[in-house]
Amino acid sequence: MSEESPRAEAAISSQYAITLRIDYPRAAGRIAKIAATIGEQGGVIGAIDLVQIRGSRSTRDYTVECASTDHARRIIAAIKALEDLKLESVSDDTFRMHLGGKLEIHSKVALKTRADLSMAYTPGVARVCKAIEAEPKTSHALTIRRNCVAVISDGSAVLGLGNIGARAAMPVMEGKAILFKEFAGVDAFPLCLDTQDPEEIIAICRAVAPTFGGINLEDISAPRCFAIEQELQEQLDIPVFHDDQHGTAVVVLAATLNALRITGKRPQDMKLVVSGAGAAGWACTRTLKDLGLGNIVVCDRTGALHRGRDVGDNPAKQWFVEHTNAEQERGGIKDVIAGADMFMGLSSPGLLSREDMKRMASDPIVFAMANPTPEIMPEEAEGLVAVMATGRSDYPNQINNVLAFPGIFRGALDARASRINDEMKGAAAQAIAEVVTEEELSPDYIVPSVFNRTVATEVAHAVSRAARSTKVARRIPKGVDIYR
Amino acid sequence: MSEESPRAEAAISSQYAITLRIDYPRAAGRIAKIAATIGEQGGVIGAIDLVQIRGSRSTRDYTVECASTDHARRIIAAIKALEDLKLESVSDDTFRMHLGGKLEIHSKVALKTRADLSMAYTPGVARVCKAIEAEPKTSHALTIRRNCVAVISDGSAVLGLGNIGARAAMPVMEGKAILFKEFAGVDAFPLCLDTQDPEEIIAICRAVAPTFGGINLEDISAPRCFAIEQELQEQLDIPVFHDDQHGTAVVVLAATLNALRITGKRPQDMKLVVSGAGAAGWACTRTLKDLGLGNIVVCDRTGALHRGRDVGDNPAKQWFVEHTNAEQERGGIKDVIAGADMFMGLSSPGLLSREDMKRMASDPIVFAMANPTPEIMPEEAEGLVAVMATGRSDYPNQINNVLAFPGIFRGALDARASRINDEMKGAAAQAIAEVVTEEELSPDYIVPSVFNRTVATEVAHAVSRAARSTKVARRIPKGVDIYR
Repeated sequence: MSEESPRAEAAISSQYAITLRIDYPRAAGRIAKIAATIGEQGGVIGAIDLVQIRGSRSTRDYTVECASTDHARRIIAAIKALEDLKLESVSDDTFRMHLGGKLEIHSKVALKTRADLSMAYTPGVARVCKAIEAEPKTSHALTIRRNCVAVISDGSAVLGLGNIGARAAMPVMEGKAILFKEFAGVDAFPLCLDTQDPEEIIAICRAVAPTFGGINLEDISAPRCFAIEQELQEQLDIPVFHDDQHGTAVVVLAATLNALRITGKRPQDMKLVVSGAGAAGWACTRTLKDLGLGNIVVCDRTGALHRGRDVGDNPAKQWFVEHTNAEQERGGIKDVIAGADMFMGLSSPGLLSREDMKRMASDPIVFAMANPTPEIMPEEAEGLVAVMATGRSDYPNQINNVLAFPGIFRGALDARASRINDEMKGAAAQAIAEVVTEEELSPDYIVPSVFNRTVATEVAHAVSRAARSTKVARRIPKGVDIYR
Repeated sequence: MSEESPRAEAAISSQYAITLRIDYPRAAGRIAKIAATIGEQGGVIGAIDLVQIRGSRSTRDYTVECASTDHARRIIAAIKALEDLKLESVSDDTFRMHLGGKLEIHSKVALKTRADLSMAYTPGVARVCKAIEAEPKTSHALTIRRNCVAVISDGSAVLGLGNIGARAAMPVMEGKAILFKEFAGVDAFPLCLDTQDPEEIIAICRAVAPTFGGINLEDISAPRCFAIEQELQEQLDIPVFHDDQHGTAVVVLAATLNALRITGKRPQDMKLVVSGAGAAGWACTRTLKDLGLGNIVVCDRTGALHRGRDVGDNPAKQWFVEHTNAEQERGGIKDVIAGADMFMGLSSPGLLSREDMKRMASDPIVFAMANPTPEIMPEEAEGLVAVMATGRSDYPNQINNVLAFPGIFRGALDARASRINDEMKGAAAQAIAEVVTEEELSPDYIVPSVFNRTVATEVAHAVSRAARSTKVARRIPKGVDIYR
C-alpha cells in the first residue's frame, strides 16, 4: 500500500497528524488566532494540550491532522508566519508512535526473591529442561510456544511498497504482531530476514521452529512464497501459514458467501474474472474454485491466462493455465470481463471503467481489492453492481486479513494443531460470514467490521473444532502432574 | 547445572516446592495433624490457602518445600495414608510456573480506533517503512531493535545438562530473557535453533539481525562457539556477545580485582592455575592474562596444557599451548596447584582437597565455580584460603553472570554500540567491583548480591561511556523530526 493515493491525498488523516508545540503571549484571542490559521490551511485540530504557563507566556501542544506531508509543511509555514509566537517543535505523530518500536517483552513470573530465581532460572529450570528433553512435545505446554507465533518476512513484497528489505519491513511485522495480540491474545514476534534466498529462508524457519507454536509468513513475493510455504509445512509439525495468500482467501470466501446470499447466484453457474496472479490471487482463486465456481478466467499483466501462454516456471500461473479458463478466452481484462458474474481484483488501480461494469452479467459482484486504490472506485461503479467490496476502511465491505489471521492462529494454538488445513480455513470463512446475521446482511454489509471483537472468538472456535474433526489437533501432556 | 548435588539433595528448596490440594472434615486438630505429618517427613510448609468450605468439609492448598522429587513423593504418600482425607491434586510449583512459558509480548501502542490502526498499521506504517528504506540506520530508532536483544542457543551445552537440544533449552533462554528485563529493562527474545552446524548458525544469526539491537549467544558448546561469535561480530554491526565466555569473564575479573585488594597480591607476581579449558575457561584466562598475570597454567581433563600436548584443531587450547604455562609444567591439577596464588575452576566437582589447598602459596584465592558442586566446597577449604568464591547462591561471593549481562547490553543499546569491545567489558568489571565499597570489602564480600539493583545501572553507565570513548557508539537520527 503506497502512501499517496488520489483520495488519501485529499483526505485529512490521522496517519499525517503532527503535533506543534507553540509558545506565545497570554493574551485574549491568541488561541483563536492560531486555531483560525490552522483551519484556513485546511488542518483539523484534534487536541490542544497545555504544556506550561510561565510569566506572561504559555506553551501548548496543538495536534493537527493533515492530508499529506506537504500539507503539514504548509500549515507549519503559516504558523511560523504569525507574529510574536515561537514554534518550539514539530513532531510527526506516526513517527513518534514508532519510536523504539511497538512491542515490549514482559515476564509473566515474578523475579524478586532467591526462591523466584531458583524456580524460574537455575537450578530449578533444569528440571523443566530435562522433562522436555525426555518428552519433546511437552515444549508446547512448558514454553512460550504454547501461545507464540513468528511473523516472518524477507521484506520482498511489503504492502504496495515492493522489495524494501528486512529493516524497512519491520514496522509492518511489528504492526502485525500487535494485531495478533489485540484481537486474539496471541503473542507474536516479528523476524525480518536479511536474505531472499528461498532455501535459506526455509532453513531459518525450520531452525527457529522450536521456539514457536506457529509460523505466519508475510509479504514474501510470489512465486517464491509458494515453495517456501509448502516445503516448510511438509517439514514442520507446527502450522505454517502465508497470510497474504490464505488470510486474504479466507476473508474473500467469507465475503463471497454473503454476496451469494444477497444475489442468489449459484457458484456452478458463475463466471469469475480475476485480475492478479500473485500470492493472493492464487489462493483466492483456488478457494473460489473449491467453492464450485466453474468458469474462472485469471488475468496477469499480460492478459488472460490460457493454454497458449508461456508462463515459465511459475507454478501458480502454470496451475491457472491448466485448471482455469474453460473456454480458453484470450485478451485483456476488458475483453474477458464481458458476461462475468463476479470480478475479483488483487492487482492495480483503475483497471476497470463504468463501461466495463455495464458489460458484466446482471447483478455483478465486484471485489476491487487493489491497495490503496481499487481497480474501480465504488463511486464509479455505483448503481451498476449488486455488491461491491474493497480493501479500504473508508468504504463499506472492507476485505481485511485482520478478520482472519488472529482467530485462525488462536484456534490452531488452542487445538495444538500441526497445520492449518483447508477445512480449518473454510470453517474460519464460514464463521466470519455468519457474524453478519440474516437481518443485518445487505449489499453494504457483507463482512463484519475489523473492530468487531466477536469475529476472532468465533473464528477461533470454528478453527479449533475443524482441527479436531480433521485430526490435526494434538493433546499435549500438561507436564505438571509429575506426581500422578 | 544438574539438579542433583550432594548438598541440594539434602537441602529443602523452592525449586522442589509442591502444592497439595487436600479436602478434609472440618474438625478440631485436622490442620495440625496434616501439618505435623508434613513436618515429620521433613517438608517445610510455605503457605496454607483456603480453597473452599462446603458443608462439613473444607479444601485447602498446602505449599510444601521439599529436597527432591523423591522427598516430595514420600510426603505425598504420608498424606495419602491419613484417614478421612482426600488428596485432590498435587502440582509441582516449578512446572506450574513454566506453564505456557515465562514471556509475554505486549503492544506499546493503543489499537482501539481506526485512527490508531491507520498510524500503527496500514496505511500510516508505510511512511515509517519508507523512511527506514531511505536511511536504514533509523531502524535502530523506529523499530524494536532499539531495545531488543536476541538470546540465541543451539542447545548444545545447556547449564550442566549438556547437549539437550533446542526444545529443551527454551526454559533457560526464556529465563535469561526475563533476567534481561528484570535487571536492565532490556526486551530479550529467545531463539532456540534446531541446528548445531556452525555455518548454519552463523547464517541464521546474520539473517535475523535486522530485528535486533544485539545478539546474546548462550550455551553453545566449545570450541564451535569461538568461531561462531568471531565470524558474526565481523559480519554484523550490532554487538554479538557469547555470555558463557564474556559474562563469566567480566564477573570473574570484578571478583579478582577485589580479591587482589584484600590479599595485596600483584598480578605480575602471581601464579594462576585454571581448571577447565571450555568457553568460560578460555575467556576468563584471556581476561586475567590481560590483567597482567604472568604465570598461568591451564588444565583440561587430560592435565596441564603445554607445548608437548596435541590439542587438535581446538583454537582455544592451541592458544593456551602457545601463550600460557611459562615454565612448561606438566601433570594433573594436583601437581600444578603447588605454589599457586590463585585457583580458578570452571570444570567439575571435588577435584581439589584440603591437602591441595595447603600446597598453594600463602593467602590463596580460590574461585571454585563448577556448578552446582564446586571443585572444592567452601567448608573443606575453610581456614586455608584468603578469599573463596563459588557459583552458588548459598555461599558468600557468588560469581553469577546476571551481575554482568543485563547492564552490559543496557549500556551497549543506550550507546547504539556496534560491538562490545574489551574496554567495555573491562569497564563493566570495574563497575561491578566498585559497587563493593572499601568499607564493605571483606573476604566474604567481594562481589555484590545478584539482587543489588545498583549493579546493572552502574555497569550500563560504565559500558556506555567506554563505548563512546572507544568510538563504537553511534548517533542514530531519531527519525521523528521530519519537518525540521
